[in-house]
Amino acid sequence: MTAIAPTGSTSDLDDLAARLRAQLGEDAVITAPDPRYTGDAAVRAPEGTAFLLVLPRDTAGVQAALRLAHETGTPVVPRGSGSGLSGGAVPTPGAIVLGLERLTAIREIDPLDEVAVVEAGVITADLSAALAPHGFFYAPDPASATLSSLGGNIATNAGGLHCAKYGVTRESVLALEAVLVDGTLLRTGHRSLKGVTGLDLTQLLIGSEGTLAVVTAATVRIRPLPVARRTVLARFATTAEAAAGVNAISLSPVRPAATELLDGGTLADIDENTGSTLADGTSTILLIELDGYGLDEQTADLTAALTGAGGEIRIVEDEAEAEHLWELRRSGRGSGAGGHRLGEDIAVPKSRLAEIFTALTEIGERHGVETSAVSHAGDGNLHPLLALPAREDDVPGQLPQAIHDAADDLVRAALDLGGTISGEHGIGTAKRGWLDLELSSPSRDLQLRLKDAFDPHHLLNPGKAL
Amino acid sequence: MTAIAPTGSTSDLDDLAARLRAQLGEDAVITAPDPRYTGDAAVRAPEGTAFLLVLPRDTAGVQAALRLAHETGTPVVPRGSGSGLSGGAVPTPGAIVLGLERLTAIREIDPLDEVAVVEAGVITADLSAALAPHGFFYAPDPASATLSSLGGNIATNAGGLHCAKYGVTRESVLALEAVLVDGTLLRTGHRSLKGVTGLDLTQLLIGSEGTLAVVTAATVRIRPLPVARRTVLARFATTAEAAAGVNAISLSPVRPAATELLDGGTLADIDENTGSTLADGTSTILLIELDGYGLDEQTADLTAALTGAGGEIRIVEDEAEAEHLWELRRSGRGSGAGGHRLGEDIAVPKSRLAEIFTALTEIGERHGVETSAVSHAGDGNLHPLLALPAREDDVPGQLPQAIHDAADDLVRAALDLGGTISGEHGIGTAKRGWLDLELSSPSRDLQLRLKDAFDPHHLLNPGKAL
Repeated sequence: MTAIAPTGSTSDLDDLAARLRAQLGEDAVITAPDPRYTGDAAVRAPEGTAFLLVLPRDTAGVQAALRLAHETGTPVVPRGSGSGLSGGAVPTPGAIVLGLERLTAIREIDPLDEVAVVEAGVITADLSAALAPHGFFYAPDPASATLSSLGGNIATNAGGLHCAKYGVTRESVLALEAVLVDGTLLRTGHRSLKGVTGLDLTQLLIGSEGTLAVVTAATVRIRPLPVARRTVLARFATTAEAAAGVNAISLSPVRPAATELLDGGTLADIDENTGSTLADGTSTILLIELDGYGLDEQTADLTAALTGAGGEIRIVEDEAEAEHLWELRRSGRGSGAGGHRLGEDIAVPKSRLAEIFTALTEIGERHGVETSAVSHAGDGNLHPLLALPAREDDVPGQLPQAIHDAADDLVRAALDLGGTISGEHGIGTAKRGWLDLELSSPSRDLQLRLKDAFDPHHLLNPGKAL
Repeated sequence: MTAIAPTGSTSDLDDLAARLRAQLGEDAVITAPDPRYTGDAAVRAPEGTAFLLVLPRDTAGVQAALRLAHETGTPVVPRGSGSGLSGGAVPTPGAIVLGLERLTAIREIDPLDEVAVVEAGVITADLSAALAPHGFFYAPDPASATLSSLGGNIATNAGGLHCAKYGVTRESVLALEAVLVDGTLLRTGHRSLKGVTGLDLTQLLIGSEGTLAVVTAATVRIRPLPVARRTVLARFATTAEAAAGVNAISLSPVRPAATELLDGGTLADIDENTGSTLADGTSTILLIELDGYGLDEQTADLTAALTGAGGEIRIVEDEAEAEHLWELRRSGRGSGAGGHRLGEDIAVPKSRLAEIFTALTEIGERHGVETSAVSHAGDGNLHPLLALPAREDDVPGQLPQAIHDAADDLVRAALDLGGTISGEHGIGTAKRGWLDLELSSPSRDLQLRLKDAFDPHHLLNPGKAL
């Protein structure tokens, strides 16, 4: 491992820009990028961080950019659509930010092979929209699917609402086209649904947050649209009762396509910000989607499970209402304008949901921080929100220490329950400080050696994920 | 990378045996092992290959054995139950064969978390048997499930009959306990269904055929038993029509739990060896299992798809008959006594099934070799059988060259159709010669660097897989 110190000086970048323009064309190299490129949806680079934005049009352009970066020892920060929540795409000083947003071709849709071949810049929801006329869909659906790119989804092994039934991104990727740090093109995986030739580089690249290679395209598995869908709303008096409902589903034979838990704080937040009336006097809801064959039988088993746990069940017959409920769930918890908010992403073994909700409340009280959470309850993934109102003595651009302290306690609580510090958002820069709490030293050591095997000079997304 | 030449001398092994006995106990070290340990279910070591069989009782014993092997530069061949078909567990001269067969504890079954924690030596079918009283099952089911071990399944990323719907082994493993080459204990993954912390060592170890570490236990995902199952038998006039039936299923919304294609040669083989009457005058059958909710609706969609492709459909109402049909499918094609047989394992994109069957017939004719095949048609995985009757001039213990030549043509045909040289059996020693046909040189190069990162002296399963 050789560490190369990026110089980050403007003149170096100017020189690099000229060379990149010669190879990639004028419009692919942007020296004064739009401010949105200074970070992702949650984390920004320090003001004044010098970087060069490169937006190739194709894989060959990505190769050219990486060859030049490699030759000049320039760090490279791969970037999808910038919807990340952990800082994975935040520019490093003196780096090339290598945006994949112009690689937007859906190269192929093949229902007979149940695959699509898509470029990294394709927006997740656009793929499913393109598949729908064929009677297919792409299963992984982060709540940000209308913003996030498939390349970004692959970089973070993105999850979403339908993962307990259909798996996370990892389970839907069969093969990758990627570019190594020196510009070499790498093809991994297979188009057949099975294949066990060699070490699985596809799986190793998924979730590696741009630290091993730059993914330019993927062969993904697609699935037939379910013959039917049904939304069920279950109301509970407490989060503990709702968690008991989740446990009751686990012991039943039915597996919903989505099981979203929204606690009282979340419901109040959504209602306040959107004018909806979700809360309707109850503490917690489970918003559930059933899909596939035999919906009446499925509904009967689900109802038996939830009623036994104290739930009050309503089948949402009206499709427009069902659509609206899911939209409310996906669109977050409102603006949060005027206050401090930190969205977290932890996961616990799913039987421990009640405990993590209890811990969340206690942590909030201990630090004087407002807490609420929405959970992909079917897979134990939780997105708590830690919030404080704005105060006069706030340091601009900084979250109050109490929020940081609460987040720290929360991450540790998830680990104590056998969980993980990140369910689906990734580590990026935001969670690196907690890595050692989860990963043992042999694991860390191995991961760094794997990094060296791909990127010996640590040019790819330095300071992220590992 | 430092290659250490194993000495393989008997006196070295005697000395090592004494040291291992002191640490692991007398009965854990076997100097004159039963002949079955000289290979797996398909490949044997050359006669007289000297090796030491070590059968630890627990993870600590595996650590101790690896520490000593590492210290003495002794190669280690990890071994599950020996049911492999690609030579992955064949002893290397002078090696320790490290058998995991005594690590048979099912440490935990937790329906609420939908996980089980199992040791590497647990027989695959035993896990599902243990889960059944809880209303759960373990989805990956290689046809050898009553013989194969979970550790072996993980080493080869084993497939089976239910993978198109439920995924291969990879999709059911959440976390691993493994021992590194120097005896260090490594824990990877998470118990929550989601988790994206760091590079995914779990996924990298799955399918690595014992070349990176020795897996001692796994946290696997378990699933609720389907509320109902139904077997459907579809008869077709040709393999091409049956393949068209598979395509028709792909375009329908129904996804069977298993879709097995048995060609005429296979049917004749089974009938001849078991006294069954599967063939019944037809050329090809699809043996299909539907499961879950809404079986009548599923059956209607399936029937429409298959009838359109020329299939003659029969719902197997009698449970005992259905069970018997699946047993016939799983138990292989009879004894094969008195002749030469090579069982292959290739996969193609599933729309190319008709073409690979055509290629198989042509290849058989070209080389004068009898061919037949059974296929996990739902995922494009094919197990052709290449056979020749015994002849007087046969070289004992050697397959006729015509079979080797036919296998070579077949593997190349699979690759030409966009497929892979191994769908689910692994590379082992049997398929190493074809690796370069499938893997590009950047991919091979990276895989060797990853090997070095785990096992710099190449002590773990040398000469296999990579």
